[in-house]
Amino acid sequence: MNRENHHFLDLFFYPESVAIIGATRNQTALHYHVVANLVKLGFPGKIYPVNPGADEIVGLKAYPDVKSIEDNIDLAVICVPASKVPGIVKDCVDKKVKGITIISGGFSEGGAEGRKVQDDMLRLLRSNGIRAIGPNALSPVNSRNNFIIGFGPAEPLPQGKLSFVFQSGLYQPRLNWLLHYYHLYLSKLIDLGNKMDINEVDALEYLAQDPETGVIAIHMESIAGDARRFMRVLQETTKRKPVIVLKTGRTAAGAKAASSHTGAIIKSSDVVYDAALKQCGAIRAQGLDEFFDLAKIFEYLPPLKGNRVALSALSGGEGVIATDSCQFQGLTLAELSLDTCEKLRPLFPPWEISVNPFDMGVSMQFYDLDFIYPILLNALMHDPNVDCLLVQLGGTQPADPAKLARLFASVVERGKPVVAWEVDPVRDRELSEQMGLNRVPVYPSAERAVRALGALYRYYCRKGA
Amino acid sequence: MNRENHHFLDLFFYPESVAIIGATRNQTALHYHVVANLVKLGFPGKIYPVNPGADEIVGLKAYPDVKSIEDNIDLAVICVPASKVPGIVKDCVDKKVKGITIISGGFSEGGAEGRKVQDDMLRLLRSNGIRAIGPNALSPVNSRNNFIIGFGPAEPLPQGKLSFVFQSGLYQPRLNWLLHYYHLYLSKLIDLGNKMDINEVDALEYLAQDPETGVIAIHMESIAGDARRFMRVLQETTKRKPVIVLKTGRTAAGAKAASSHTGAIIKSSDVVYDAALKQCGAIRAQGLDEFFDLAKIFEYLPPLKGNRVALSALSGGEGVIATDSCQFQGLTLAELSLDTCEKLRPLFPPWEISVNPFDMGVSMQFYDLDFIYPILLNALMHDPNVDCLLVQLGGTQPADPAKLARLFASVVERGKPVVAWEVDPVRDRELSEQMGLNRVPVYPSAERAVRALGALYRYYCRKGA
Repeated sequence: MNRENHHFLDLFFYPESVAIIGATRNQTALHYHVVANLVKLGFPGKIYPVNPGADEIVGLKAYPDVKSIEDNIDLAVICVPASKVPGIVKDCVDKKVKGITIISGGFSEGGAEGRKVQDDMLRLLRSNGIRAIGPNALSPVNSRNNFIIGFGPAEPLPQGKLSFVFQSGLYQPRLNWLLHYYHLYLSKLIDLGNKMDINEVDALEYLAQDPETGVIAIHMESIAGDARRFMRVLQETTKRKPVIVLKTGRTAAGAKAASSHTGAIIKSSDVVYDAALKQCGAIRAQGLDEFFDLAKIFEYLPPLKGNRVALSALSGGEGVIATDSCQFQGLTLAELSLDTCEKLRPLFPPWEISVNPFDMGVSMQFYDLDFIYPILLNALMHDPNVDCLLVQLGGTQPADPAKLARLFASVVERGKPVVAWEVDPVRDRELSEQMGLNRVPVYPSAERAVRALGALYRYYCRKGA
Repeated sequence: MNRENHHFLDLFFYPESVAIIGATRNQTALHYHVVANLVKLGFPGKIYPVNPGADEIVGLKAYPDVKSIEDNIDLAVICVPASKVPGIVKDCVDKKVKGITIISGGFSEGGAEGRKVQDDMLRLLRSNGIRAIGPNALSPVNSRNNFIIGFGPAEPLPQGKLSFVFQSGLYQPRLNWLLHYYHLYLSKLIDLGNKMDINEVDALEYLAQDPETGVIAIHMESIAGDARRFMRVLQETTKRKPVIVLKTGRTAAGAKAASSHTGAIIKSSDVVYDAALKQCGAIRAQGLDEFFDLAKIFEYLPPLKGNRVALSALSGGEGVIATDSCQFQGLTLAELSLDTCEKLRPLFPPWEISVNPFDMGVSMQFYDLDFIYPILLNALMHDPNVDCLLVQLGGTQPADPAKLARLFASVVERGKPVVAWEVDPVRDRELSEQMGLNRVPVYPSAERAVRALGALYRYYCRKGA
């Protein structure tokens, strides 16, 4: 790629040559997949496995050490035991690699001794102008060039505009599920680990200017860099791109646990974080589920221009729950136009008079989903009193889930966000899957769907969409 | 069954003869399954389908009307269009049936006219001493005798001590998933619908004295009966059995939606409900997910005697999130005994010093789950400083999920509650399934697992377990 005036982190996401130091032929080792994934997914850069005990790894020539590689190295990925890392880093400095990612743990998170070793490495790298991610970090990942550094086998990466910053590898065992079942569409992912050098300020600055990133989701336990600068950058960024923040280590016990796994010290109270994040226009997720829920809705949907919701539930009872949730989130049930009411009336028996919430369960006693949905969606799509649709899936298989999902997507394409929730994750699976493939967000419950919708509304309200 | 001094609702759960009025041979109709389910699941009572247009339904002789049945009828189930219901009710009175369930909707929820018809029916029934569930209700269900009145095909009912009261059929499209994937173990279920006659006070009184019910979960939008009596019974009941309440229609908009689907009028504010429920010792669920989460933990687990948690997560980052959640819920991380620390130390590299939270991800770089879990569980099971275990599943398949689940269950059997959460619902599925079959509760996230654990702790704290 040709990037004028590029940010230094471009090197980490678009390296032209990568050395994997500690690559292994042992397929049961978690880090076996570091090389295997790059080969399998077709990363277009050059891959140089380094292992003194192997001639060939995953079909690639292996090198005894990084200095034996004839080529220049953009990025060295280090996954050897902690005790060997300082020597390897020295080798990398001698080789004049341009950047380093240290996967290995066992440094500042292990106590004073590990912190000293980490500090010494940092000094060496700084004096040679080499930037580093980690240690104790599993990244980077870039969907555009199939570049993925991580443990375990990876599947092809669904491309999107969502970029993640993680403080730790907590995403790693979830990644496959998040991408291929929960249907997140990824741009870039960076796990910062102990943040010896590269920290959340660098990551945010990079993603803020990255044209391939439209939504930023940041998991952090602490701010390692300049907190004022972080908040300044955050405030600038949220005017252009939604930034979702999951700040953990909120309690004294949580902060202590955080300190023990990345060596970070959490100085500010949760209340201070909360106020600062809010002031900067960031969207704070209250938990991990919500973090991914918000990442999904902001990646999938266009701006929400008003708070008038057309709600359809599979029973009156769920309609009540969803209505409560809407009101808690500052959303209101739309007064449907007379035209819409007339279009929907034939779906009900004479005694049923409520169209918002629309009680699909009553209608399903007479018609099937394939008949109800097109009438419902066509009516609501054209109703000027409706800003968005909130729909429960039907718990039964439609005749053609892909076609129905495209119908939902066509409403979104007309600028009206649609959010759905499941009634039965098993019976709804195929439609839910097709909705994900068509970027119509589906959630496991009304509460989660509405919470995400509320965040979408408030962000675009503030932004003045 | 022989029940001395029985409560009148016994008749609805243990009828010896049931007439299904409006039974149909049309397999695409939702109410086809009312008769089909009873036959398929082997309900031991007598089943009399009533339909003037059929001689036989699901292999049973059909009757043109209820009066043609030679036998006495304990329970008449009515599923005909609203306009025909009053005539059928009159027939049932003439036949001297002992109880009635009206599935059909189209009464008080449809406005003044429907309310009048409903009131007239009620007067007729009262003057003849006949009690009725509904109208607009899908119930009852009793796992002990495979008695299930509901739409759609049903699977065999897993027997347990959890009994539900619903205000509306919202459970209906979820039931299969709740019982067979989420693994709830059921005693009885009653859906009250419009609560023309039998209401939440009757249901609570019945379940309070029912020896087959150990946990009561009530969904309600309004109190139709005597609110003071409801609260008095509630207060008495929570001393002996946990009662979980999902009160919806919390907001003005939600209350309006509730009124339109069951005709109820919600008079009291949510704050009043909240205070009253708390004072009576009920456990209030904040949403539908939490309602089922709490039902599960109380059905599965023995009393929790203290708040000291041994936590094991798949990454440091998730450990922090779970630790925060524990602190929010009044739970604390246990100080593991020296003995336990010594048993766990070999699972980690020398530099890893944290055992609570236990970072399973670090250990899994060296050992597999089948090696780690038995050491972990055996150590924690015997630690007097540990009141309960909070464990994240491993995201990989153990060699023998059933065996591992039984190991978890053995900790619970020793009186130490175990709660688990998934990292990847797909990769964890088989272990999760086995855990459910062994009554070890698994949740989709740490937050949900800890929220349920917190409720368990607070209930038994209050009760003085």
